[in-house]
Amino acid sequence: MVIREQERPFSGLSDNKKMLKVGICGASGFTGAMLLRILYKHSSVLISYLGSNSYNGSNVNALLNSDYENTPICFSSIDVDLINKKCDLIFLAMPHTASHLLLKDIKIPAIDLSADFRFNNSALYEKWYGTVHSCPDKLTNRVYGLPELFRDRIVGSTLIANPGCYATSIILPIYPFVRNGLCSSAVADSASGVSGAGKALKKELLFYKVDENYKAYNIAAHKHQPEIEEAIGEKSGQKIALSFVPHLLPIRRGILSTIYMDNLSKIDKNEVAMIIKKQYKNEPFIKVRDDPPQILDVVGTNDCHIYAAVDEHNGKIIVISAIDNLLKGASGQAVQNMNIAYGFDETEAIGGWLG
Amino acid sequence: MVIREQERPFSGLSDNKKMLKVGICGASGFTGAMLLRILYKHSSVLISYLGSNSYNGSNVNALLNSDYENTPICFSSIDVDLINKKCDLIFLAMPHTASHLLLKDIKIPAIDLSADFRFNNSALYEKWYGTVHSCPDKLTNRVYGLPELFRDRIVGSTLIANPGCYATSIILPIYPFVRNGLCSSAVADSASGVSGAGKALKKELLFYKVDENYKAYNIAAHKHQPEIEEAIGEKSGQKIALSFVPHLLPIRRGILSTIYMDNLSKIDKNEVAMIIKKQYKNEPFIKVRDDPPQILDVVGTNDCHIYAAVDEHNGKIIVISAIDNLLKGASGQAVQNMNIAYGFDETEAIGGWLG
Amino acid sequence: MVIREQERPFSGLSDNKKMLKVGICGASGFTGAMLLRILYKHSSVLISYLGSNSYNGSNVNALLNSDYENTPICFSSIDVDLINKKCDLIFLAMPHTASHLLLKDIKIPAIDLSADFRFNNSALYEKWYGTVHSCPDKLTNRVYGLPELFRDRIVGSTLIANPGCYATSIILPIYPFVRNGLCSSAVADSASGVSGAGKALKKELLFYKVDENYKAYNIAAHKHQPEIEEAIGEKSGQKIALSFVPHLLPIRRGILSTIYMDNLSKIDKNEVAMIIKKQYKNEPFIKVRDDPPQILDVVGTNDCHIYAAVDEHNGKIIVISAIDNLLKGASGQAVQNMNIAYGFDETEAIGGWLG
Amino acid sequence: MVIREQERPFSGLSDNKKMLKVGICGASGFTGAMLLRILYKHSSVLISYLGSNSYNGSNVNALLNSDYENTPICFSSIDVDLINKKCDLIFLAMPHTASHLLLKDIKIPAIDLSADFRFNNSALYEKWYGTVHSCPDKLTNRVYGLPELFRDRIVGSTLIANPGCYATSIILPIYPFVRNGLCSSAVADSASGVSGAGKALKKELLFYKVDENYKAYNIAAHKHQPEIEEAIGEKSGQKIALSFVPHLLPIRRGILSTIYMDNLSKIDKNEVAMIIKKQYKNEPFIKVRDDPPQILDVVGTNDCHIYAAVDEHNGKIIVISAIDNLLKGASGQAVQNMNIAYGFDETEAIGGWLG
Repeated sequence: MVIREQERPFSGLSDNKKMLKVGICGASGFTGAMLLRILYKHSSVLISYLGSNSYNGSNVNALLNSDYENTPICFSSIDVDLINKKCDLIFLAMPHTASHLLLKDIKIPAIDLSADFRFNNSALYEKWYGTVHSCPDKLTNRVYGLPELFRDRIVGSTLIANPGCYATSIILPIYPFVRNGLCSSAVADSASGVSGAGKALKKELLFYKVDENYKAYNIAAHKHQPEIEEAIGEKSGQKIALSFVPHLLPIRRGILSTIYMDNLSKIDKNEVAMIIKKQYKNEPFIKVRDDPPQILDVVGTNDCHIYAAVDEHNGKIIVISAIDNLLKGASGQAVQNMNIAYGFDETEAIGGWLG
Repeated sequence: MVIREQERPFSGLSDNKKMLKVGICGASGFTGAMLLRILYKHSSVLISYLGSNSYNGSNVNALLNSDYENTPICFSSIDVDLINKKCDLIFLAMPHTASHLLLKDIKIPAIDLSADFRFNNSALYEKWYGTVHSCPDKLTNRVYGLPELFRDRIVGSTLIANPGCYATSIILPIYPFVRNGLCSSAVADSASGVSGAGKALKKELLFYKVDENYKAYNIAAHKHQPEIEEAIGEKSGQKIALSFVPHLLPIRRGILSTIYMDNLSKIDKNEVAMIIKKQYKNEPFIKVRDDPPQILDVVGTNDCHIYAAVDEHNGKIIVISAIDNLLKGASGQAVQNMNIAYGFDETEAIGGWLG
Repeated sequence: MVIREQERPFSGLSDNKKMLKVGICGASGFTGAMLLRILYKHSSVLISYLGSNSYNGSNVNALLNSDYENTPICFSSIDVDLINKKCDLIFLAMPHTASHLLLKDIKIPAIDLSADFRFNNSALYEKWYGTVHSCPDKLTNRVYGLPELFRDRIVGSTLIANPGCYATSIILPIYPFVRNGLCSSAVADSASGVSGAGKALKKELLFYKVDENYKAYNIAAHKHQPEIEEAIGEKSGQKIALSFVPHLLPIRRGILSTIYMDNLSKIDKNEVAMIIKKQYKNEPFIKVRDDPPQILDVVGTNDCHIYAAVDEHNGKIIVISAIDNLLKGASGQAVQNMNIAYGFDETEAIGGWLG
Repeated sequence: MVIREQERPFSGLSDNKKMLKVGICGASGFTGAMLLRILYKHSSVLISYLGSNSYNGSNVNALLNSDYENTPICFSSIDVDLINKKCDLIFLAMPHTASHLLLKDIKIPAIDLSADFRFNNSALYEKWYGTVHSCPDKLTNRVYGLPELFRDRIVGSTLIANPGCYATSIILPIYPFVRNGLCSSAVADSASGVSGAGKALKKELLFYKVDENYKAYNIAAHKHQPEIEEAIGEKSGQKIALSFVPHLLPIRRGILSTIYMDNLSKIDKNEVAMIIKKQYKNEPFIKVRDDPPQILDVVGTNDCHIYAAVDEHNGKIIVISAIDNLLKGASGQAVQNMNIAYGFDETEAIGGWLG
């Protein structure tokens, strides 16, 4: 059990500050461990529960290879009653199709990092994930947790579906153009590091299969394609038809998406840049650049870097985005959502370079 | 000087066989070294000249890290008279814009691995390479050395322009569809290992800039884009408008191209596969696959692997190709061209796995 | 210029707290950038000066790829008067043999990350670094900034020579055995990521020279060998003869040292472990482990992990250590030294996972 | 089944040449596939059998990703009767402790790439491999297949135990010094690419566990240590005590060993170099160098590169060797052994650069 008797935060903050008690379920994967590292340094958060069936009873420091804190943080088993009792807010970093089974009985606010609540109706979910949704009613009130599009609805929400990593990297650069009626069809060619695939023991994730290699997978059949189309449609009321091909890079972290959009109004390079800069001018985590971003520019940050160009020769708007799949593509964005939902400073614990 | 007195091949073949005396200029770069390794094992070839100003006088074994042969092969300076006198055929593995200055005075047949003779007119060359062509008349009779499209013209040719690496990986999968009037616009998203950039001492090629990174460059402005459009047009009489974005992978060798074509006649997956299989059914180095290729599938071979799919949702034909940029994308294809031009077995010295 | 008018820290701390004004010279290299990232989050530090001749005038955010802070931090030129006037403490992250020329005229306390003040006499420095020392008198009072050996002398010191990265990884595991008279001769076989070599534009640091490769260099001739022997001797009064061979790994960060010591008293595995655990039992950044450490265990932390074993067959104590060369091997240790010297909490800003 | 009716070699050699019919068991691992690629190009060999229980019935081209040959080579099940009937010689590329169970009933000459016949007595085997040897009598007549030490005994041998990869890289540089009474104790610190661990689906071989990492394993407890000591003793009659620590590199192929030997007679650098050059002066695959070898120097070749130095400060001879673990460390050396045993040219099919 992880709550210390005195119910004080692990870091040495003042006692009279009211702390948000948060739990993390599935804390042994990449995104769970990253959540833990981020939340541990959050000045308004007390980590009150860590759930992992595979690490139940283990000390968290052993997993994270650090024992300097000398804190007896241990994993508990995954238990709904414990979650409801111990936490004000629960982060679910569970596999797809496992998350909704747990969330069904959770009575407290939740931020779900799986895909289980990303669609706003169960039919689409069941088509793409091949399983019946256990709590379709919760889909109606969930908010799609992409702050740059849905910040207003995140405030005060009790169920936030954290977006997919590819989806984040593609929606952000496409949305301003669809919204303005400048594009109705796009090709998104994305490349991701292996942490996007988790820690599963699969032959295709062995070093000798990945190192010095590169490949496409789920060609025009990846589950983030309908997620992207739905989220953009939900916000803009416009339709976008997307061809999406993800690729696997021989690196640990990061996503680069190169997106080719139809240029319906034949706008030029300056107009393209202006549209995207105007859209995101007040966003703390969006950086619109004048040169193409690289994956190393964003690894270790919650930022999304975007560069826009025009291919006049073939009538395309070309936009390139880069994010860290574990931060803006997962755990960083989840904390950003929490910060917004609870009225904390939006950049608290996720501003700047996190490593 | 590299010719041994008795003018016999380095490998132990019969004396009475007439050998083709070939030279290599620029033999110290990636493609030059690969040419040397391939031609060394070719049963009808005698390497009679190795030209490199930077390695002039050095023993080639020191460069290649192998001295088992105990052969006194040394680099000479680059000298047109020597080339004309010592060789029946010269391979030029020189930088772009340096090659045409040398070839201007060469009297023997040549296979040029640079871009200097890839366009069939000097205007396009001068626009994209920013320099005046020294022998534009030679452009008229040169053949674009992509055997799968121009084999007939390669036979007996005296000046073969070896295609660009990206161009090879993109023309081969696109051409059958353009030729059949099924596509007039395409997006090509390619990723290459660093050997495509040569051995230049540039900051952007340092390990810490490439490792764990991925980036786009020359966005819709790469010189292979007009090369691809011209070559397809020259062969098919059809126009294709191409958006092309190359990317740099943190690997040594290989190119993967993911190509999204308009599907003008709404053909289905079976028709798409049939068209490409029919086009290349007799080609020794094209493998049309039923699953997507990976870069490691082709590294060390002169093969181009192609996979075709249809994205009905967004009306696209999606084709993925993989080549080794140093073999089918450069030196392997150059030897394939030589084999065709001189009537050798087309797969001699480049069949199977080369390493 | 980097000091904001109101002379407040960049982060939002209380006004009435007295802040230490620190400067960084050479802030554009790996260690300078890391110092900046660490010190930026230190609750008692105000960054008051950033010196870099190559980046003079540039905004630091452009270099670090982050502009979320919206702070106008710019690099200044390297100027001794400015340093003396603007700072309470200066960190020098300069090249070897450049640092002492600057430090000669610095009147404020300094922590030097170069090798220029690591030896306690100029003769050894001049022999190994091939240049005359400009302020040999300063060597007398400098302290060798390895806290686990010289913490007492670091308190209140005005010139701290931050240890070499290899030296840190080797001294820490060897020292307890030498001190106890259990070992007088050792072999240290170390492997480092490329950031140890800095950002220099050298052919041997190109991606194609490092990727998929591994090599030894400076065989039994590396400058950290006398540094190690002197530091251990200075503390223990014992002599240790060391054979040291460093190797270059195809990774970004981290050092692993495998050390083979003579086992003079034939102690067994338990005694070996006990000696090292006893030595470091109160050290916040030393973790003595029961299984061998890996580089990924320590990357992103200021920790040194140590594992000890005995090879009874050949009479050796074998100890393996791992550090992050940019943190415990450079910038992290430099901040640890500052924390000690100024009486801050020793783990402030460097505890736990830094990224 | 792999034998074509006409019993001719796959490559187009003359009919009247008598071909050696060879089989490969366990042909789907790294070393089996490499054997196949090498033997396929051997001018005196006919591949008559490929055994793999996991790939039984599969076409070999699918595995090797190449179908240009249009040859119907398929894997058979592993069957002793088939081996005895179809082959003149069998290569066993099987797991340790599986190989001896098969070899027990094999009546034809064999080259075994496992560890099962490397020791000359079953007691040592059983101690280190933890299993009873099924045919200890065969150990008496086996030869340890390191050509540079045991070439005389390999000629005409019917059971050749191919050495371990680390063992090859360590015995070759140590042996000349032990033989000459110059060294009786050594430390061998080796680093290997992941192909040394095979294709097993183990968590520690996942990309995210290997990439950007480096670690020691089997510290002073690796099975190649007694193998090395026995082989050197068997040849020289001298004893050598060895401390051996292997490490895992984040690369595909290659081994670098850095070896620190006691320098009993205090010989100098010139004598050290002379001893090793004299020992190997007629060896086709040993290259004694004047600068330290790197792994990339030998990958793709059957060469062992050796560099020798002296550390006078600490009284050590330091020798560095590099090999390709799949070639000189496994399949290349196995073919070298075959070439010697059958009187073929020793470098046939393995000379020069293999890829």
